[in-house]
Amino acid sequence: MKKLEGSYFESIQPGTVLSGFGVSKVVDSDHPDYKTGDLVWGITFWEEYSQIASPSFLFKIEDTSIPLSYYTGILGMPGMTAYVGFYDICSPKKGERVFVSAASGAVGQLVGQLAKLAGCYVVGSAGSSEKVALLKNKLGFDEAFNYKEEENLNAALKRCFPEGIDIYFENVGGKMLDAVLPNMRDCGRIAACGMISQYNLKEPEGVHNLIYVVMRQIRFEGFIVLNHFHRYPEFLNMVMGPIKDGKITYVEDIAEGLESAPAALVALSSGRSVGKQLVRVSTV
Amino acid sequence: MKKLEGSYFESIQPGTVLSGFGVSKVVDSDHPDYKTGDLVWGITFWEEYSQIASPSFLFKIEDTSIPLSYYTGILGMPGMTAYVGFYDICSPKKGERVFVSAASGAVGQLVGQLAKLAGCYVVGSAGSSEKVALLKNKLGFDEAFNYKEEENLNAALKRCFPEGIDIYFENVGGKMLDAVLPNMRDCGRIAACGMISQYNLKEPEGVHNLIYVVMRQIRFEGFIVLNHFHRYPEFLNMVMGPIKDGKITYVEDIAEGLESAPAALVALSSGRSVGKQLVRVSTV
Repeated sequence: MKKLEGSYFESIQPGTVLSGFGVSKVVDSDHPDYKTGDLVWGITFWEEYSQIASPSFLFKIEDTSIPLSYYTGILGMPGMTAYVGFYDICSPKKGERVFVSAASGAVGQLVGQLAKLAGCYVVGSAGSSEKVALLKNKLGFDEAFNYKEEENLNAALKRCFPEGIDIYFENVGGKMLDAVLPNMRDCGRIAACGMISQYNLKEPEGVHNLIYVVMRQIRFEGFIVLNHFHRYPEFLNMVMGPIKDGKITYVEDIAEGLESAPAALVALSSGRSVGKQLVRVSTV
Repeated sequence: MKKLEGSYFESIQPGTVLSGFGVSKVVDSDHPDYKTGDLVWGITFWEEYSQIASPSFLFKIEDTSIPLSYYTGILGMPGMTAYVGFYDICSPKKGERVFVSAASGAVGQLVGQLAKLAGCYVVGSAGSSEKVALLKNKLGFDEAFNYKEEENLNAALKRCFPEGIDIYFENVGGKMLDAVLPNMRDCGRIAACGMISQYNLKEPEGVHNLIYVVMRQIRFEGFIVLNHFHRYPEFLNMVMGPIKDGKITYVEDIAEGLESAPAALVALSSGRSVGKQLVRVSTV
């Protein structure tokens, strides 16, 4: 397979089994920590049955009173991404103004809800009117806009944040980041966990407004959530209650069957997925 | 006067008296904190005598055993910029690899020397062979290069930092920042106090490699030193000894007479100044 046209990622060789975050049931085990029937979440593979020689990133699921699929999303890697990025990187204070891009996605929707729980004003951007409605009506964002319908992102941000942005949760990069920078307030914080708008470009877009990092004394910090999992028990402890009480909700987009996985990946990259994109391989 | 061609800064109206950081002697005062004969440094004006109605940023000079001009540089605003940026923003650890751009300038030369005192490996970039020699032979940098003579900045950085950069003290922005980002190590820190390469461009250059902020978990932080002056006494206390002992040195480029000030400003912007650019208006 040749290098993907218009992408700076390498294409995948035929025969490679992709890994990803999944929920699984142990069907057989000689590992002392896992026994037949255990439910686990963590890094598994795009296949119906996986042999895991040395589980390097696998968590036992203790609480099964909520949908198991949540362990791939709000209770898994994306949830931790929202938690670490928002609390640890952005140090939010009550009343601060928070902007979340890709806000209806697996990470963004929880960031917005954590921000509301922290007493912040929260605006999200997304790529369809359906997603914008979801943000405002179901996920409790104060305001939301469809970035594809805004002629001028800077004007859209000024309209939503007349006094500027304290915290930007960066999921997309490129033009959105460039529009956000001049709208940041003094001592603002930007947590970056990804730049999805850039992944399928041959060359990443240039960001021109970095002088605002100096002028506004911005802290712009990237993080990789896998290095923060010592905080996972604390995170579970914090979100489990609000999820059960319905104070935090979570939107999923579930594709049925392993054969639908490639199409689901394309849907995710092209913005067609609404909420956390999942593939259901089987039911337990 | 019309807007300066090729600059995104406004031009200065005729009749405006520019402010700047200077050392002055009080010739008359009815302010309780200042008396005739006091030496002060802080924000004064491009003129031989200034009337300062309410001194908002003026420090009395207590120690006159070192050149008074140092209070415009290593003991003044640029010195504090180096100190705050290096220690507070970059949190250096012994053995870390530090890169300083505009390294022979008012700020950069002290950053490099602080980094050596902290047990780091330090490389600087500058814009002439004279400056590069200064960095290596007088200011104690481990390595230095002339960015104007490097065809490929990325290759120059790889040559000087085969294992990558832990700390980048950012003074220039644009292409240099873009070359630095892929050479940063995991959990690297970038302190940005200015982006001088961008000030005279009509539009700032695009920076394309920001995805490395995520991939390398970089903290990229801007700061304005005027907001950190509560730490000035601690800074003086730290650097005064090494300066007197000759363990920290400082290179100045002194223009004579107020009439030489505009040319000195142009020399600074065009990279002709070597070391901290000063204008001597009179001697005390």
